[in-house]
Amino acid sequence: MSLLVQKYGGTSVGTVERIEAVADRVAATQQAGNDVVVVVSAMSGETNRLLGLATELSDRPSTREMDVLLSTGEQVTIALLSIALHKRGVPAISFTGSQVRILTDESHSKARIEHIDCERINGELSQGRVVVVAGFQGADEKGNITTLGRGGSDTTAVALAAALRADECQIYTDVDGVYTTDPRICEGARRLEKITFEEMLELASQGSKVLQIRSVEFAGKYNVPLRVLSSFKDGPGTLITLDQEEDMERAIVSGIAFTRDEAKVVVRGVPDQPGVAARVLVPVSEANIEVDVIVQNSGVDNTTDLTFTVSRGDLARTLEVLGGVVERLGAKQVETDDRIAKVSIVGVGMRSHAGVAAKMFSALAHDNINIELITTSEIKTSVVIEERYMELAVRALHSAFELSGSKE
Amino acid sequence: MSLLVQKYGGTSVGTVERIEAVADRVAATQQAGNDVVVVVSAMSGETNRLLGLATELSDRPSTREMDVLLSTGEQVTIALLSIALHKRGVPAISFTGSQVRILTDESHSKARIEHIDCERINGELSQGRVVVVAGFQGADEKGNITTLGRGGSDTTAVALAAALRADECQIYTDVDGVYTTDPRICEGARRLEKITFEEMLELASQGSKVLQIRSVEFAGKYNVPLRVLSSFKDGPGTLITLDQEEDMERAIVSGIAFTRDEAKVVVRGVPDQPGVAARVLVPVSEANIEVDVIVQNSGVDNTTDLTFTVSRGDLARTLEVLGGVVERLGAKQVETDDRIAKVSIVGVGMRSHAGVAAKMFSALAHDNINIELITTSEIKTSVVIEERYMELAVRALHSAFELSGSKE
Repeated sequence: MSLLVQKYGGTSVGTVERIEAVADRVAATQQAGNDVVVVVSAMSGETNRLLGLATELSDRPSTREMDVLLSTGEQVTIALLSIALHKRGVPAISFTGSQVRILTDESHSKARIEHIDCERINGELSQGRVVVVAGFQGADEKGNITTLGRGGSDTTAVALAAALRADECQIYTDVDGVYTTDPRICEGARRLEKITFEEMLELASQGSKVLQIRSVEFAGKYNVPLRVLSSFKDGPGTLITLDQEEDMERAIVSGIAFTRDEAKVVVRGVPDQPGVAARVLVPVSEANIEVDVIVQNSGVDNTTDLTFTVSRGDLARTLEVLGGVVERLGAKQVETDDRIAKVSIVGVGMRSHAGVAAKMFSALAHDNINIELITTSEIKTSVVIEERYMELAVRALHSAFELSGSKE
Repeated sequence: MSLLVQKYGGTSVGTVERIEAVADRVAATQQAGNDVVVVVSAMSGETNRLLGLATELSDRPSTREMDVLLSTGEQVTIALLSIALHKRGVPAISFTGSQVRILTDESHSKARIEHIDCERINGELSQGRVVVVAGFQGADEKGNITTLGRGGSDTTAVALAAALRADECQIYTDVDGVYTTDPRICEGARRLEKITFEEMLELASQGSKVLQIRSVEFAGKYNVPLRVLSSFKDGPGTLITLDQEEDMERAIVSGIAFTRDEAKVVVRGVPDQPGVAARVLVPVSEANIEVDVIVQNSGVDNTTDLTFTVSRGDLARTLEVLGGVVERLGAKQVETDDRIAKVSIVGVGMRSHAGVAAKMFSALAHDNINIELITTSEIKTSVVIEERYMELAVRALHSAFELSGSKE
């Protein structure tokens, strides 16, 4: 008998019919002999409805009261799912975040879980009940309701799985697993059976939106086996675990991620002296603008070019911030390009295999795709290219690293 | 400086605009130098929306989960009202029933309040905050969410006022006070400045729907001055207190209540022996049918007629239940009439004044209205008459007891 934590997101519980389908799935899981804890989000659309009401009243509503407001969304779902389970003869009991003492810090709207008291949940499980817990929410030490911010229900599920030492944390979504790349762009894209936490993190941070980064980090930290599955069709999904067994046959690259949501900023002719990168980038981050890729070439004539990327939406503000800085530094000029894309190959196999990056560059060169920027990490290599070549690059790399089900 | 508890029902907070109006009123109350605790219901329509979702999933949803579900309605309102108060520069903080430890028994959907921990509320009040509390809900000793059943928000307000020793509990509704009778039926109907708890109870139980009986009982028990006011227009409303000061000028009768929701059942020719009334009525109440008026005349020939009234909706079931009983008793026959109405005069003055009932009967006789049944209590006399005479009877009595503002 296993203890499973299953998480169903807003789309999976978006209508009464879908809640019925979730209840069927949970009932089957329990009848197969498992203990089940279910974590649910608000019905899709509900959070926006509540936000709309608050926004009509104030353009800057207090975060404490927003947490009180938004946490009702999941509370509705836990009650409805429990009712649907009872109807199927499955004993079930619902709990809000504060009822099972998901203790968080006091950072309303982006609280972090500090402790979970498992006693009540274990007591109910031992009586054969399915325990249905509201995702996304907890309470601080004073009993104030808190929410965990974006992707919070995934975090709740992983935290519960860790605290309860569950055998698996199953995240039900609208896709049936993690793919080698986006099937909409590359026909040969293939569902991965297994992937490591690190790879999943890199894929997520590079634009693959299947799971929230924070919940993957959390699962990795506490070694909770995580499985991504579809609410809408049966299948084994993708298992995310701490480490791949030694598997000589396994691919060097697990997946290809991409994003076109970035813009490039090049500051030309910066004096090549210590502290210059900081003088350019500190004001940018102080303006709450997230910088992604940063590249500094060694220069000539005691000057250098500093290049970095930001979200496209932040480009205008970035230029405002840079205005004064560049002048004070005596830089030559600032160039921007918002028609770029970033493509990354990700895989733990890159650690032990030389020449992976070179193979990537060759594949792109073969299709005449010019590389503008390169950054690398231990298990990832990213390139920034012209946006119009993005799909071509993804397909070329997918083929070069033999990621399709059948060899090409 | 006074401590006021204000309660706003579902209609008063039914839209964002109405919540703004409530916030204005609360802000003004605080700025006038009062400490304010506000109790709110779910926005009108919300409870029915949630009930609809549950009913789609199950025809007999668990009461525990229904309480989890329905309690979100008030939780939404407390957050929105607090946000609206902040927008007006009024410091405010919201609490659910379980957050301020409104401890109830375990009777889901009709829980009774056992204790309120005032520490947290007093702490917030002493810091100058308006405290906004979710009505209708509490939590049992294990932390399960409970609801108080119909009229529960009124009960929450009165219980809080009692626990906090508030100077007044103000119930905002869609009427501007308690009237001598329904103004839709009697033009001369007049708002009462003051009324006693007992009178209010009798009026409420006789069909005047301004306040829920339970909250009036509660207010009377703990001597919490209760005021009924309108959310939509200014005015002093009606104050309900423990006892009227000795006021020689005051009217003997305070108000006239009526209901047409009843049906009469006459069991004829019942053997006149001990235990017969019980043998007829116990099976009826065991079938969960509430019996209102009960009259047994002294009979002739060792038989008697037993007459009682039930809700019209329960008449068919009552006859089913009576079927066997009547046969076993050897009663002659059962007659029914569902075109009746009950009209009552209510007033504490009836205690000390003789001849009040006689005056009532004379007034009805003057208009040729036949009285079918009579029951009396210390501060109330009720008659059952043909339904078609109801309006006429109400107007005749209103005039006879000089209840209009200007003498008629």
